[in-house]
Amino acid sequence: MKAFMDKDFLLSNETAKRLYHEYAEDLPIIDYHCHIPPKDIALNSRFGNVTQALLGGGNYGDHYIWRLLRACGFPEEEVTGDGVADLEKDRLRFHHLAEAMERAIGNPVYQWLHLELQRYFGVTKPLNRDTADEIFDACNAVLSAPDMNVRKVIADSNVDVICTTDDPADTLEWHKMIAEEGALKAKVLPAMRPDKAMNVEKEGFAEYIKVLGDAAGIEIKCINCLKNAMKKRMDFFGEMGCSVTDHGLDYVPFRPATDEEVNAIFQKGLRGEAVTDEEAEAFKTWMMLFLGREYAERGWVMQLHYGAIRNNNTKMYRLKGPDTGFDAISDRLSGTALARLLDALAVEGKLPKTIVYSLNPNDNAMITTVMSCFQVGYGDRNHVQHGSAWWFNDTKPGMEQQITNLANESVLGNFVGMLTDSRSFFSYARHEYFRRVLCNVLGTWVENGEYPDDERALREIVRGVCYYNAKEYFGF
Amino acid sequence: MKAFMDKDFLLSNETAKRLYHEYAEDLPIIDYHCHIPPKDIALNSRFGNVTQALLGGGNYGDHYIWRLLRACGFPEEEVTGDGVADLEKDRLRFHHLAEAMERAIGNPVYQWLHLELQRYFGVTKPLNRDTADEIFDACNAVLSAPDMNVRKVIADSNVDVICTTDDPADTLEWHKMIAEEGALKAKVLPAMRPDKAMNVEKEGFAEYIKVLGDAAGIEIKCINCLKNAMKKRMDFFGEMGCSVTDHGLDYVPFRPATDEEVNAIFQKGLRGEAVTDEEAEAFKTWMMLFLGREYAERGWVMQLHYGAIRNNNTKMYRLKGPDTGFDAISDRLSGTALARLLDALAVEGKLPKTIVYSLNPNDNAMITTVMSCFQVGYGDRNHVQHGSAWWFNDTKPGMEQQITNLANESVLGNFVGMLTDSRSFFSYARHEYFRRVLCNVLGTWVENGEYPDDERALREIVRGVCYYNAKEYFGF
Amino acid sequence: MKAFMDKDFLLSNETAKRLYHEYAEDLPIIDYHCHIPPKDIALNSRFGNVTQALLGGGNYGDHYIWRLLRACGFPEEEVTGDGVADLEKDRLRFHHLAEAMERAIGNPVYQWLHLELQRYFGVTKPLNRDTADEIFDACNAVLSAPDMNVRKVIADSNVDVICTTDDPADTLEWHKMIAEEGALKAKVLPAMRPDKAMNVEKEGFAEYIKVLGDAAGIEIKCINCLKNAMKKRMDFFGEMGCSVTDHGLDYVPFRPATDEEVNAIFQKGLRGEAVTDEEAEAFKTWMMLFLGREYAERGWVMQLHYGAIRNNNTKMYRLKGPDTGFDAISDRLSGTALARLLDALAVEGKLPKTIVYSLNPNDNAMITTVMSCFQVGYGDRNHVQHGSAWWFNDTKPGMEQQITNLANESVLGNFVGMLTDSRSFFSYARHEYFRRVLCNVLGTWVENGEYPDDERALREIVRGVCYYNAKEYFGF
Repeated sequence: MKAFMDKDFLLSNETAKRLYHEYAEDLPIIDYHCHIPPKDIALNSRFGNVTQALLGGGNYGDHYIWRLLRACGFPEEEVTGDGVADLEKDRLRFHHLAEAMERAIGNPVYQWLHLELQRYFGVTKPLNRDTADEIFDACNAVLSAPDMNVRKVIADSNVDVICTTDDPADTLEWHKMIAEEGALKAKVLPAMRPDKAMNVEKEGFAEYIKVLGDAAGIEIKCINCLKNAMKKRMDFFGEMGCSVTDHGLDYVPFRPATDEEVNAIFQKGLRGEAVTDEEAEAFKTWMMLFLGREYAERGWVMQLHYGAIRNNNTKMYRLKGPDTGFDAISDRLSGTALARLLDALAVEGKLPKTIVYSLNPNDNAMITTVMSCFQVGYGDRNHVQHGSAWWFNDTKPGMEQQITNLANESVLGNFVGMLTDSRSFFSYARHEYFRRVLCNVLGTWVENGEYPDDERALREIVRGVCYYNAKEYFGF
Repeated sequence: MKAFMDKDFLLSNETAKRLYHEYAEDLPIIDYHCHIPPKDIALNSRFGNVTQALLGGGNYGDHYIWRLLRACGFPEEEVTGDGVADLEKDRLRFHHLAEAMERAIGNPVYQWLHLELQRYFGVTKPLNRDTADEIFDACNAVLSAPDMNVRKVIADSNVDVICTTDDPADTLEWHKMIAEEGALKAKVLPAMRPDKAMNVEKEGFAEYIKVLGDAAGIEIKCINCLKNAMKKRMDFFGEMGCSVTDHGLDYVPFRPATDEEVNAIFQKGLRGEAVTDEEAEAFKTWMMLFLGREYAERGWVMQLHYGAIRNNNTKMYRLKGPDTGFDAISDRLSGTALARLLDALAVEGKLPKTIVYSLNPNDNAMITTVMSCFQVGYGDRNHVQHGSAWWFNDTKPGMEQQITNLANESVLGNFVGMLTDSRSFFSYARHEYFRRVLCNVLGTWVENGEYPDDERALREIVRGVCYYNAKEYFGF
Repeated sequence: MKAFMDKDFLLSNETAKRLYHEYAEDLPIIDYHCHIPPKDIALNSRFGNVTQALLGGGNYGDHYIWRLLRACGFPEEEVTGDGVADLEKDRLRFHHLAEAMERAIGNPVYQWLHLELQRYFGVTKPLNRDTADEIFDACNAVLSAPDMNVRKVIADSNVDVICTTDDPADTLEWHKMIAEEGALKAKVLPAMRPDKAMNVEKEGFAEYIKVLGDAAGIEIKCINCLKNAMKKRMDFFGEMGCSVTDHGLDYVPFRPATDEEVNAIFQKGLRGEAVTDEEAEAFKTWMMLFLGREYAERGWVMQLHYGAIRNNNTKMYRLKGPDTGFDAISDRLSGTALARLLDALAVEGKLPKTIVYSLNPNDNAMITTVMSCFQVGYGDRNHVQHGSAWWFNDTKPGMEQQITNLANESVLGNFVGMLTDSRSFFSYARHEYFRRVLCNVLGTWVENGEYPDDERALREIVRGVCYYNAKEYFGF
């Protein structure tokens, strides 16, 4: 029996151990996609108690954990709390966490949490009902140290680059402050996520377009004004170091329409009128094509995250808002649209570097084979990438599946690797998790005689996937 | 090499063996979903010869086995027979079974059958062409023992609770007889399956509604009468100990309509007129919402089984009727509808305890993540459950996949575990099969250092999933 | 650590090794589906240099490899070349291949290529940047041997039967020449692929129908003439030894229409007018039903390959044409249509032996359970077969998944096994790959005690799946 989560955690053979410890372990982290607030970096926030640090509270925090606590029947106020730290209430929540954890065998949260306890809090005991109190106190002691703060965690985690997730209308004031101060070794860069400018069918669209126009200094009355405003914001983001964008899509849209048709839909949106599903898809398609061309010209990377069905629990959505643990995997099919969208840009020579992620693991094989049709003519390695196992898939089997699939259908050595998608500074441990899974898969192939024990080639693959490929692909 | 199906069958490491033998093996069975006839329990039937006992015959029997024999090219009359025991004809069918079995390496039927031969017949030799005669005779000797009967098998199998599958119009006379006699240690409870009351688009709907009305003592002329009739039948089922229901759906319906619209569709059904697909879906949606609310108020569990495409072979359907081995996995997508249906009940605070099963294993990740949006506010553990790998999926890889997926996305320790879905009293061996697979998965994680070797926590998980969770969830 | 790709490659236990080396290794190959040109066999072509032999060039060659080189960013002219052998240009392409290979860990091409290097070129060193030159020269030396030619490779590969892929209008002149010469031990038979006669919606349909009519000596003015022409061509193909057909479908069509409707659609096609998607589906359905009946009467095998989305990159399609590496897995759902199509033939008693392949691995479970509804009444073993893992799926995990799925839901011992689908004479190594994967899966089950160590039964299964089942099923 292997010891519980020791230094060789997830490494099942000697080659895997060697690859991880010699080549992967000490590499810096490029976290090209996360959801941590730049404000906390700028202000170098402290963490409150361990429950606040790991679970968060109110409407912001780790909804992966919240779902597990809810599944154990704990009342909502003892799961998310009210967003205000309170040692005794947070102790109770930590107890609930401990009880959920011991029942949640096989859940990645169990293992991520224990990696975080080990790496950041020096706690090696498993968390359960019996150890909850002791661990709660021990962690709080660590968090109360005078030098414990956000920047220390970033530095201790050996983070090279952080790309936050930012609305095109954002002032990026915190990024400015961080850059001007110049005290942080890690680069903190904005990544543009223009979802609100695309969701013509959603409540609040007209209000948002007003905000966007104000940010750009342009009154947005038509789709041409929208283009101009977006370009100005892209220019500004570019000046602030942005080279990565992200799109959170329910599905991949592809419904071409004329500029006139699209403008008419846009006008409906501006007037707050209902638009049909087809109209919304046409508008989104037009936006994706416009933005895709822009990204290509700027050399930016376009990330497409799709396959979620969001805010499924109406009652809880009213209480807590979005991103609080009520989203799921969608089974809507996007294969044909994905192929057409990439082709529409490629045929113009305007397909940007693109990373495609689906929340539905059934899409893995489709994505890897579709993307493989669009690698020619750019001169870079995997111009289109199949993104790392994401959200509900960043489990050990989910990562193994994505890595294996990518290896089976494309060139694994070209992969840009892991993103955290995290809402917590302690989530950098997920990079360690990914690197262990990766090295274990590679080591297993070598041990099975499926790939030669070629130290140079293996080193290049490991170091590439864990760090250097992303550095080169994103141009950091 | 491990010995063939010995006491450590499917248990690949020491922890798995310990968990199974110490905690799982001796637990009673709660079979909350099966298709065995209560009449056979009430009358304490005997089994005929081993072919009749294991394969059945005519239009009733083990269609899993029938499919394998057909795939080997045996003529239909030597597969299903004519439903009448005949020692020489049944010997021939047993020979065919033996020949199919030796070719069916990797099929769960092979392993279930050998578990049954070992546990109920004391046969440890593998069944094949050479051993067929000897095993046929040995089994028949066992079956001819004076005390060999249905109740002995139930008692020997350590069965605590059996939920049969019963139409709302059923008199439940056999359940009454069993309860009044009081001789059986196991509880035999009805479970309500109102499919016929939902299938407004099917031939025979009007006739069925008449039968249902007669059972309820209500002339069913409109959807309000239908409600009242169903309520009366639910009251009656409740008095008879029912707390579980089951729905066999081709897909998950969700097409809300007004009461007027639904009543108009119902009237068409009563007149035997054709209804469109959309109308049928609207009617089913209305019924699911009505029944769901009722189940919630009664504290009953709602099972949703979907994803089958049935009676695919028209010629054989005409000859043999339904449930004779001509069904398949459907690839129709139900994700959005499932989320909406659960939400429509949850928003009213009327979502009953629900277990969702899809016949399509591609739905696993979707189901587990959708259900996780509806766990809040009930105070029980996994108010919504992802049901055990079912029908075509209750293979070793299918079970491992469902268990792993459930563990990855939810809290495995809360799972209510295995159902047999069986048509044979010897199928209780499938609970053993499930328990072995479960303990092997858990043991493997522990041996790999992914979960601590914490005896208390593991014991609680194993005993919970194998027995106690179901006991608590169903309120037995 | 196992040695790199030695004699026990992919064989992880003693039973697997014994099954492979004693029963599988020396069996002849029945390659019932490939894309190699009969002309090269008839003329007994030589191979040019190793780059030409393995990668091909221009518009014809191994597009599996081309995709990997493109993903590494090499310019198109250094990937596909121009179809003309040039030692220095081909050396550069071979270098690119070497570099792509060392990065492509986990890709089946890596392993197939090394099997080919070992078996046909005597090269046991791994190909990488450092060994590229040496291996390029060594392989060219082998290819320049006076007796090195297509027929030698076929003979050395122990090939028994080759079915090429031929248009119904083809003269089959090369097959005639090969048969008349009588020098080749392997049978080289035509297999009919009537895709062009079905694609009423595609450009060039009318021209093709003219060509088909000329071949049949019939002026094709209506669907009855089309039937007659196809029957004449089937008669001719039958005389030439054809007993296998193949259909390359994007999806499974099932949209029944009257003869009048279908003829009207056909007339549109003849006039070069646009037909709607529904019309094209109706025409294809009609053709599949007509052809299916014909195949059944002739005792031919019908292969249905579906699930591809082709020619996704418009720019490259214009430059290189079809089948040059720009196809992908489609996620369009075909389950219901597949069940209906098989049923429509079965209900008439006219379902031919059928092999179903989907390019989307998500379809595995659906296909195996649908086909299991149509095994009754024919007297042969698995009248309907779930075809071997195909194209993007013929990876180790893909093959394991198809084999496991088939074993779980049907009778693995009845399986007709591997096809190469190849465009290169060296691809026979893929049969070895498949046999190793198969024996490893079987051996693992035996070693785990899931199937008895029954030498006779295992021998029959291995030899059946690797050779004898295909021989019997196809009637070779």
